[in-house]
Amino acid sequence: MITVHHLRIGRSIFTVWFLEELGLDYALKIYNRNDIGRAPPELKEIHPLGKSPVVDFGEFVLAESGAIATHLVDTYDDQYEFAPPRSDAVARAKWTQWLAYSEASAFAPLLVKLLLSREPDPKPQVISAFAAGEVALQLGYMQDSLGEQEFILGDRLQAPDIGFTYICNMAERLGELGPYPNLKAYMERNMARPAFLRALDRTGG
Amino acid sequence: MITVHHLRIGRSIFTVWFLEELGLDYALKIYNRNDIGRAPPELKEIHPLGKSPVVDFGEFVLAESGAIATHLVDTYDDQYEFAPPRSDAVARAKWTQWLAYSEASAFAPLLVKLLLSREPDPKPQVISAFAAGEVALQLGYMQDSLGEQEFILGDRLQAPDIGFTYICNMAERLGELGPYPNLKAYMERNMARPAFLRALDRTGG
Repeated sequence: MITVHHLRIGRSIFTVWFLEELGLDYALKIYNRNDIGRAPPELKEIHPLGKSPVVDFGEFVLAESGAIATHLVDTYDDQYEFAPPRSDAVARAKWTQWLAYSEASAFAPLLVKLLLSREPDPKPQVISAFAAGEVALQLGYMQDSLGEQEFILGDRLQAPDIGFTYICNMAERLGELGPYPNLKAYMERNMARPAFLRALDRTGG
Repeated sequence: MITVHHLRIGRSIFTVWFLEELGLDYALKIYNRNDIGRAPPELKEIHPLGKSPVVDFGEFVLAESGAIATHLVDTYDDQYEFAPPRSDAVARAKWTQWLAYSEASAFAPLLVKLLLSREPDPKPQVISAFAAGEVALQLGYMQDSLGEQEFILGDRLQAPDIGFTYICNMAERLGELGPYPNLKAYMERNMARPAFLRALDRTGG
């Protein structure tokens, strides 16, 4: 049995969404944040970092959204619906690049922006300038890469769209998505999919 | 032919190191940072983000250190020296987790710490508290996970050790590695390997 350790308000709803897209059976263990928005200490019993998503596959426990997605497609996606077969090395490399991108290059500048939003005035100048430049660079790159496509790798949703949607959603919550209408439309399309709505429903929103 | 677009002083020396561990032939195109430490605009002609490492495999160009490492092992590591075979799903999932970890969970707090080091006093309080807590959490987790092992996945170097060493090196440059002697010894061991020294030599240090 797959068990998702799900912390409310955060990234792990996106892992639940992917499980719904895959049509897999899974159990949910739901955690609430405390008064200051931190994860509860019980999550540390599952994984030492005490973060979410963490998925228990029975035989072992896995963290890192990109690693969880890779293991899910390698194990369950035998029709290559959410990833190209490994025999197509070029397509698979690009798939891996986009999967990594949302967790690495795209995430860090938005995290800095989030921290800045919590910092009282006066805002630190060097960090503010970094965040403004890097967030615009990444979101512009995402908008250009998506272009007129429906999904980041073409005409059907694949695993990297999960993280890509997460980044769009984080940018939207920070008030940064306005200048990127393609990204906003993409995010809204994806978050209106039946699988996403089922994930919302099962996790209690 | 593999061509590494290498920006001096930064992450891409670690990709060059991995190519040396793999014993592959490759060409290097070397870029220098400008007076304020930024990448030169020519890098944007290779990849829109204008960052490094970016690797040109002839047929296509790939960014993101983790994706580059995955493609390298999938294409060239047919003896499974640097990654477990995909048939060993559990070992491979843990490998992917550690590969992702250095680029995602571990990197972001250290980036915040780096930005703080460039911010004049007074340092922003909320961001400083975040960085202090998260850097200690991640480095403590890394130290515990490494334990008495020689490498992060046991007794031989695999692809995730490249990023893990990068994170240790970044922490060291920020003056954060002192309380973690195992990580420091691990970093020093890895950066004294012949393949790392060849990478230093070829890139001009």
